[in-house]
Amino acid sequence: MIGIGETKMGKLPDRSLRDLIKEAGSKAIEDAGIEKERIQALYMSNFNGQYLCYQGHMGPLASEVLELGNIPTIRCEGACASGSLAFRQGLFAIASGMYDVVLVGGVEKMTHRATEEVTTGIASAEDFQIEARVGITFPSIFAMIANRYFYEYRNVREEMAMCAVSNHYNASLNPDAQMQKTITAEQVKNGFPVSSPLTVFDCSLVTDGAAFVVLAATDAAKEVCKKRIVEVVGSGHAGDTLTIGTKKSITAFAATINAAKEAYNMAGLSPADIDFAEVHDCFTITQIINIEDLGFFEKGKGGDAVASGKIALNAEKPINPSGGLKAKGHPIGATGISQIYEVVTQLRGEAGARQLKKADIGMNHNIGGTAATCVVNIFKGW
Amino acid sequence: MIGIGETKMGKLPDRSLRDLIKEAGSKAIEDAGIEKERIQALYMSNFNGQYLCYQGHMGPLASEVLELGNIPTIRCEGACASGSLAFRQGLFAIASGMYDVVLVGGVEKMTHRATEEVTTGIASAEDFQIEARVGITFPSIFAMIANRYFYEYRNVREEMAMCAVSNHYNASLNPDAQMQKTITAEQVKNGFPVSSPLTVFDCSLVTDGAAFVVLAATDAAKEVCKKRIVEVVGSGHAGDTLTIGTKKSITAFAATINAAKEAYNMAGLSPADIDFAEVHDCFTITQIINIEDLGFFEKGKGGDAVASGKIALNAEKPINPSGGLKAKGHPIGATGISQIYEVVTQLRGEAGARQLKKADIGMNHNIGGTAATCVVNIFKGW
Repeated sequence: MIGIGETKMGKLPDRSLRDLIKEAGSKAIEDAGIEKERIQALYMSNFNGQYLCYQGHMGPLASEVLELGNIPTIRCEGACASGSLAFRQGLFAIASGMYDVVLVGGVEKMTHRATEEVTTGIASAEDFQIEARVGITFPSIFAMIANRYFYEYRNVREEMAMCAVSNHYNASLNPDAQMQKTITAEQVKNGFPVSSPLTVFDCSLVTDGAAFVVLAATDAAKEVCKKRIVEVVGSGHAGDTLTIGTKKSITAFAATINAAKEAYNMAGLSPADIDFAEVHDCFTITQIINIEDLGFFEKGKGGDAVASGKIALNAEKPINPSGGLKAKGHPIGATGISQIYEVVTQLRGEAGARQLKKADIGMNHNIGGTAATCVVNIFKGW
Repeated sequence: MIGIGETKMGKLPDRSLRDLIKEAGSKAIEDAGIEKERIQALYMSNFNGQYLCYQGHMGPLASEVLELGNIPTIRCEGACASGSLAFRQGLFAIASGMYDVVLVGGVEKMTHRATEEVTTGIASAEDFQIEARVGITFPSIFAMIANRYFYEYRNVREEMAMCAVSNHYNASLNPDAQMQKTITAEQVKNGFPVSSPLTVFDCSLVTDGAAFVVLAATDAAKEVCKKRIVEVVGSGHAGDTLTIGTKKSITAFAATINAAKEAYNMAGLSPADIDFAEVHDCFTITQIINIEDLGFFEKGKGGDAVASGKIALNAEKPINPSGGLKAKGHPIGATGISQIYEVVTQLRGEAGARQLKKADIGMNHNIGGTAATCVVNIFKGW
């Protein structure tokens, strides 16, 4: 990882897809300190520009904006995990010896559309024929997941609220975050009801934004990198069925468990070795399930870990120091790359007011749809 | 290449995305003669299901339909080149040693939407902000390209028509093709005007369909393959700017030229070594430009080659034995995979009435948008 860049996340009515790509891409290339002629390929992530912005073919769009010439480009999509999927393709392109330096970027522009249009666009990450067509959208899916979790383990309504509180606090220390205000558990629980038990404060944000990273082979990284070198030491990717009704469990995500296992094995590390993680908190219940599935806490005990303060900055296992999808924002195609941006920022010691004291090994965890796609990456600072 | 499968191409109102995936995917797995448990990853191609069918996240959808368990999946998009892009990711995943057996599939469902909706959906492959928003759709872009070609070289209106005639004839011998009727050059030239000089007969089709292939590492292929083994000996991928106004030339596509060079170099072959090719005939002028850019004929002489019968079945350089996008059909996300399906079918000697006498080395060439993405693959039968 030799370069990172991202935009401020939020409702950015005056900024086009081109503007967002230009800013984040240029920042990443500048941070890498390389001539852009060294970039051999571009892996772009975008979730649903085709529906929300009438814009597909995001690879050549970004290549044109960033003036990258005739390099090969591709758009990768796996719903909300699109960013980490694009990252993984770039990673393996380098690992295979195909390329020495690649650019990986993600962008999404969502806030210009009406709420019902955004909902329709996001619902393309679930099954249209079986689910969305009959009105089952993501808040109702994750509300079912929360209720099932309550049934199988215990009611964690309070702890879900505490996840939102924690993420808002972290975001208040992150100048790129969409939310800059702290909230209380009472506000979360008494928020506008979306799908019981979820209120609007349990849901991640609708966000415009972009994030880019530059990846290089180790030799090239050593040559150009003037900051702490961050190595990708593990990566895992697994899937599951698209529909909620066909999964073996909806309170433990098989895609996360399998992807994490692959990443830990590749890195030769265990959950205890991870200093902090950016995890996919599309809803507060998801954050609790994730920190269990990733092996940080025992199954059914994620709520206890949150309640006892273990996920706070500089506690036992800091989760989402950036503010997460809940408070940093969820510009879908950019989200995975923005998680990686935060991990690298922490490993470099550049996270300012939210800088963790111990930041040598970090993780990003990104899921798409009803946990039908999952990518986990583990990063280590040299 | 150990397995191939595709659906009949056409207007298929009674068939869902799930049906199309099920048929083509099952055929490919059955053709490979493997247990599906051997498939380690799925690379899916789809262009614009999110706009046309409200369905993204096509990887887990296909994995669920084909019952592939928790394997990793991804959707690749690069406009009309999406299929070949997905293929190339699968190819390099195997070449890198990550996986031994992968499934690559493409699907598109288009004919259920009104013409203006299909036009809007397809226009997401160009630039929305600069081009589509002001009414520049693909027929007008390729009409400009044709007119510029006429200016720089000579008027090839007649030869463009002959490309359509040739592709329709080939399609009449292909039971999977959408068009089963031969046409005349007079019909093409007198067809319903779309954007001068293009008539409706110069334009590729709006098509529903799916195509899948199974790729295996050489050792695994030798073990399971009961048919002629087809090896991917070369692959190239290059890009260009998205907008037509920013390209160095619009009568020679830099993305094609660069991708072909990479593929020829990897294969250690020259254009003369290629027995036949499936090339991207989104419009008839594109076919003429392609057969020049691929090095089959001198620049500006593509029309002469067509007029003298050199691209016909069993002539000097057979082009689009399947019928091409023009007559076999253009189910966008499936198109590149369907081109590869045809190449493998020919190399195996299974192409029936359209079987070429000499079919040892074949090529597929796939472009996206205004030649902003290009992938070229070269295949050799053992």
